[in-house]
Amino acid sequence: MRVLSGIQPTGRPHWGNYFGAIRQYIDLQENNDGFYFIADLHALTTVRHPDQLRQNVIDTALDMLALGLDPNKATLFVQSQIPEVTELTWLLMTGTPMGLLERCHAYKDKKEKGLSADAGLFTYPVLMAADILAYDSQIVPVGADQIQHIEVCRDLVGSFHHTFGETFVLPKAKTLDVGAKVPGTDGQKMSKSYDNTLPLFGDVKKIRKQIMRIVTDSRPMEDPKEPEGDHLFELYQLFATPAEVEAMAAKYRAGGFGYGEIKKAVAEVSETHFETARTRRDELEKDLDSVRDILDAGAKRAREVAAAVVDRARTACGLR
Amino acid sequence: MRVLSGIQPTGRPHWGNYFGAIRQYIDLQENNDGFYFIADLHALTTVRHPDQLRQNVIDTALDMLALGLDPNKATLFVQSQIPEVTELTWLLMTGTPMGLLERCHAYKDKKEKGLSADAGLFTYPVLMAADILAYDSQIVPVGADQIQHIEVCRDLVGSFHHTFGETFVLPKAKTLDVGAKVPGTDGQKMSKSYDNTLPLFGDVKKIRKQIMRIVTDSRPMEDPKEPEGDHLFELYQLFATPAEVEAMAAKYRAGGFGYGEIKKAVAEVSETHFETARTRRDELEKDLDSVRDILDAGAKRAREVAAAVVDRARTACGLR
Repeated sequence: MRVLSGIQPTGRPHWGNYFGAIRQYIDLQENNDGFYFIADLHALTTVRHPDQLRQNVIDTALDMLALGLDPNKATLFVQSQIPEVTELTWLLMTGTPMGLLERCHAYKDKKEKGLSADAGLFTYPVLMAADILAYDSQIVPVGADQIQHIEVCRDLVGSFHHTFGETFVLPKAKTLDVGAKVPGTDGQKMSKSYDNTLPLFGDVKKIRKQIMRIVTDSRPMEDPKEPEGDHLFELYQLFATPAEVEAMAAKYRAGGFGYGEIKKAVAEVSETHFETARTRRDELEKDLDSVRDILDAGAKRAREVAAAVVDRARTACGLR
Repeated sequence: MRVLSGIQPTGRPHWGNYFGAIRQYIDLQENNDGFYFIADLHALTTVRHPDQLRQNVIDTALDMLALGLDPNKATLFVQSQIPEVTELTWLLMTGTPMGLLERCHAYKDKKEKGLSADAGLFTYPVLMAADILAYDSQIVPVGADQIQHIEVCRDLVGSFHHTFGETFVLPKAKTLDVGAKVPGTDGQKMSKSYDNTLPLFGDVKKIRKQIMRIVTDSRPMEDPKEPEGDHLFELYQLFATPAEVEAMAAKYRAGGFGYGEIKKAVAEVSETHFETARTRRDELEKDLDSVRDILDAGAKRAREVAAAVVDRARTACGLR
């Protein structure tokens, strides 16, 4: 199956991104023809500093490769290297009812908050549809917040086909497993908007300090504690083996156990978990040319697919 | 000066189009570096039949060449052959405030009439801005109704430069000379929306019949008539020499003169006026390969310019 994932190069990934999305995206490379693109054209709606955007794109490529995206199994490329996508965006735009875009959450939410929106945010779902359709994508793994955009894409396919005949592969959304809860340093869901994130990469000592500062309650060390629902225990569960988790749960229940101990344990299991990725990332960072080669090869492959699809679309519309 | 004109391939040109716009566009090829594009991507917002669009594009090329557009002096090409334009559209879109597009007449008028608009009509001014900027256009000759869109383009340049630094040539609008009034077959302004047009090309006998059926008043033939303000006289003025016009005015004033006579005269001068263009069009139609060669050569030249401009824009944004 052709599976498509877009990754926004808008900042450093955190544990929440990893368990909630990235790891699941990457797992899909195993039994599928995975197309992974770094969505720099989308990022442009928010990242308005060229140097930062350039850095974000290369960082995102490093992250994905370090975390196990295998360029021999999947196709990794940068969105803006495939100009066919913006061409297809316009073809779709001419058949996109305003109402369809006005109902989309990202735009609607911003407007309802009284914030000024730009046409990039408003027409974003059309670009996203073009991204999906340009590669004959069959499956698009997404978080719940993106399901609406897949529906928009499917609507646009329907009306394009109605007007111009069968042209595109109709994609399906695959909802990501929300699965494990990933609490942030304040115990709430880990999210950039709460400023409570723990990064995947970066200075290990600094991350350890962040972990040691995770907010806890002030129950005395001697009291037995119920592990379920405790955010430090939940973080530990993300990384530890079932046996380790069982042993940790027993310590919680026995009491005489301090939060410092579980924090240290979280720091250790997480460091171990990300150690390979960190090492790999450091190596790749020293060899950016090979990363660029991977992206170039990916773009070449993606562009071949997109060129054929957009050619079908152009002919269908009467532009060729 | 680099002068840019877009021609919508949405139907057959009429006398109003010719005197109000086409002739003036073509005249600009003489002392300028004229870029003339057939706006098929724009037409797609209204022409939803592929065969019709293909036919319209080739017809428009034939019309322009027949009317004197000289591929040795100017660059004639089809918009969709330059994919850089849609790429630039997206780059501009990310910095286009919604309010700017919401105020544009074409969209606003449609919305106020309670008609459903699509995102193609809504974002049309951004595509138009990309068309203009992609060729470093300095002058854009437009009718009064399009001046707002040039202002949008200039606004987008301003905010792009503010964010990313100097990148584009700031274009200026050149308002077309409304000059001579071109009345339609009912005496109102000639316009497709009044269904009162006389075509430039087509079956001469049929056009002559249309001219003979032009609505007139029912004053008796014997009465002297004032030529000024008479729509048949106005049509005659478009084509006749000053001496011919003077002689015709004298006939009006003398009376004993019928509308049949002036109609015949209009038919004759207009046929003579368009004779060269008609012959040339017939010849070109028999040699469509050479027309396609002209369009291909035009696209090649236009694309070289656009590639350099869009490369500047990409680098400015941080996409390269």
